[in-house]
Amino acid sequence: MQSTHNLRINGERLWRSLINMARIGGTARGGCNRQALTGEDREGRALFKQWCEEAGLTVRVDKLGSMFARMEGRESLPPVLIGSHLDTQPTGGKFDGVLGVLAGLEIARCLHEAGLKPRRPIEIVNWTNEEGCRFTPVMLGSAVFAGVVPLERALAARDAQGLLLADELARMDLDCVEPMGSRPIAAYLELHIEQGPILEDEGYDLGFVTGGQGHRWFDINLRGFERHAGTTPMPVRRDALAGAAFLIGEAKRIGEQYAPDGVATVGCVDVRPNSRNVIPGEVFMTLDLRHPNGQSLADMNAAFMQSLESANGAYGLEGDIKCVSECAPVFFDARVLDAVRRASATLGLRGRDIISGAGHDAFHMASLAPTAMIFTPCCGGISHNESEDISPEWARNGANALLLAAIEIAETI
Amino acid sequence: MQSTHNLRINGERLWRSLINMARIGGTARGGCNRQALTGEDREGRALFKQWCEEAGLTVRVDKLGSMFARMEGRESLPPVLIGSHLDTQPTGGKFDGVLGVLAGLEIARCLHEAGLKPRRPIEIVNWTNEEGCRFTPVMLGSAVFAGVVPLERALAARDAQGLLLADELARMDLDCVEPMGSRPIAAYLELHIEQGPILEDEGYDLGFVTGGQGHRWFDINLRGFERHAGTTPMPVRRDALAGAAFLIGEAKRIGEQYAPDGVATVGCVDVRPNSRNVIPGEVFMTLDLRHPNGQSLADMNAAFMQSLESANGAYGLEGDIKCVSECAPVFFDARVLDAVRRASATLGLRGRDIISGAGHDAFHMASLAPTAMIFTPCCGGISHNESEDISPEWARNGANALLLAAIEIAETI
Repeated sequence: MQSTHNLRINGERLWRSLINMARIGGTARGGCNRQALTGEDREGRALFKQWCEEAGLTVRVDKLGSMFARMEGRESLPPVLIGSHLDTQPTGGKFDGVLGVLAGLEIARCLHEAGLKPRRPIEIVNWTNEEGCRFTPVMLGSAVFAGVVPLERALAARDAQGLLLADELARMDLDCVEPMGSRPIAAYLELHIEQGPILEDEGYDLGFVTGGQGHRWFDINLRGFERHAGTTPMPVRRDALAGAAFLIGEAKRIGEQYAPDGVATVGCVDVRPNSRNVIPGEVFMTLDLRHPNGQSLADMNAAFMQSLESANGAYGLEGDIKCVSECAPVFFDARVLDAVRRASATLGLRGRDIISGAGHDAFHMASLAPTAMIFTPCCGGISHNESEDISPEWARNGANALLLAAIEIAETI
Repeated sequence: MQSTHNLRINGERLWRSLINMARIGGTARGGCNRQALTGEDREGRALFKQWCEEAGLTVRVDKLGSMFARMEGRESLPPVLIGSHLDTQPTGGKFDGVLGVLAGLEIARCLHEAGLKPRRPIEIVNWTNEEGCRFTPVMLGSAVFAGVVPLERALAARDAQGLLLADELARMDLDCVEPMGSRPIAAYLELHIEQGPILEDEGYDLGFVTGGQGHRWFDINLRGFERHAGTTPMPVRRDALAGAAFLIGEAKRIGEQYAPDGVATVGCVDVRPNSRNVIPGEVFMTLDLRHPNGQSLADMNAAFMQSLESANGAYGLEGDIKCVSECAPVFFDARVLDAVRRASATLGLRGRDIISGAGHDAFHMASLAPTAMIFTPCCGGISHNESEDISPEWARNGANALLLAAIEIAETI
């Protein structure tokens, strides 16, 4: 293949695609609500497929709805896979996930336009249900692809309304025939916004993501005793919400104890009966623990188990806890990372090594193929929020680094 | 009128009526879900009306749906009003409110059967929306009757689904024509389960309710900043739920500081976006403060305002608080109480003075007419719970005391 050192993606076209995709599920506050396997996701997938076909790619869909858009290589070898996800949080932003998919598409458009064909095929993937806000667990498409979650279990997942994933997938009007993860992948690359404040604060253009935090997610049920709020003296109460409040404070305390690397979050609380003059009898809550060090993550977990025991005793509750999702810390591939660092240097950009605080599909792919990620900064480190934002320049720099790294890998690995 | 000293209600008939009414909205766990102005309430009202007419009473309904079943007296004087409410909590019991209405009905049945007609008319009232779990404020029927809440505001109330009270009332198929509170009432009597543990623990048959706690109810909105749970370091978070947890703990601390008379409860919490991997950006919560002493109630309120200010500072939140319902402590009428005490003595029962922890329609009626309440024990002091229970004997004793007190008042006041 001719020299590609001076090849660059079309930043304006990439930005236009990002903005057009964001219209689907666009919210009044400038964010996006395009949750997995909803009508909005269906519309987003259709637009992505149309764009892929216009760029000369062939789109195939696996049995869980993850979409693979393929550009053939000069040789018949396992492909370099590039991608992320088009689904969003209920009050999500325009770039989380979407940047990685559309930057992949932009690379294919760029190569297609230049009439260039790398040695290995290149595929762009849009993973199903990465966000995990509709169906548990998170990163489901890549988890099933990597064999971490059985396909049958994924298809049997239900959302909060009780709707079955298999039924919702059927409504997407996709030809879900590709078998899951049955073929070799040469390497996996994912471009993503940092979703944290470090790169912007320190003035970096790119993050070379060396690995990711492990996480453990829990469902917690607390059962106290529902009674009249006016007539039940304080000392005899078994208030499930008072116990939950103690545990939310404990999660914060544990997170702070393991800061800056560790984080602990209670994101969901549902109170029963949730009536203002009834002492709450039951509370459901979630807990999200993360740490880049596996031992520290286990220690945070153990500390919280002690807190739960204390809550049960002090508040007269029966509380149980169940781990619903677990991911060990991940370490990415040195060769792929080096290709990313070289791409950054070729582009004259300033990058630094960074650990991913969020979970990504790349975590599962790392078990199947040499993998790395590239981060772009994001404004104020804000993500999972309608005001999530990046600059067109950040998007362009990230996509160019992805382009050069992908070409180097497709040619040399 | 002939001597009524030996007149007694029919305990079996009362119990049967209680059990039959409880079938309407009956829950699998033995409780009741017959919330105000629902289909179940409609059915309960129809049954009550049928029973009233079978006992020779004439039923009239006021513009807010409160039902008045009248037995004429020997003289054309303002009536003695007896009653409570047939609506329940979403996971309520079979007796809260219902006992007071059906004991009133049983008195009318008993007098009708004996062919006795007291000097004053007797009316049995079923107040609309006492529980307050569907429409705010609580005790709405009596509040509007007493002129505390304007009729227009009550009709404009909306439930959590946004349904309008006026529309829901129209679906009850009642002839809501009686003007609100326009006529004099000689006295008001309400029989109710204690909803607390005191009478049962101390072995009393009856409570002579001398007054009630004041309450203040608040809506609280906390706004933090919604961000990714994995990538946002603990120190930069503005977690609305962490702030709410602190405030729930503060409510408990303040309640305990003013125990045993004071109580403080957070019954409702709604978290946005309520996604397990998003730091909560907004929390709505309620606060219920009660104390029989007005100054102490004001002090509890002031203490919580300080806590809210601390939460705003310590958690980086914007929080605001609004009082949505307020009721000063209430003191009942000495003459009516004496009639109740004499009835208890005639019946050979053991009673004690007690303060009501819960709010009741009698609180509003106390501003219009000489008023008192009678409490029966309830098992374990449990109420606002599907396992709420009383014994047939407690029901009978309470209804007999109500009968004798009502007759004395109807004859002598």
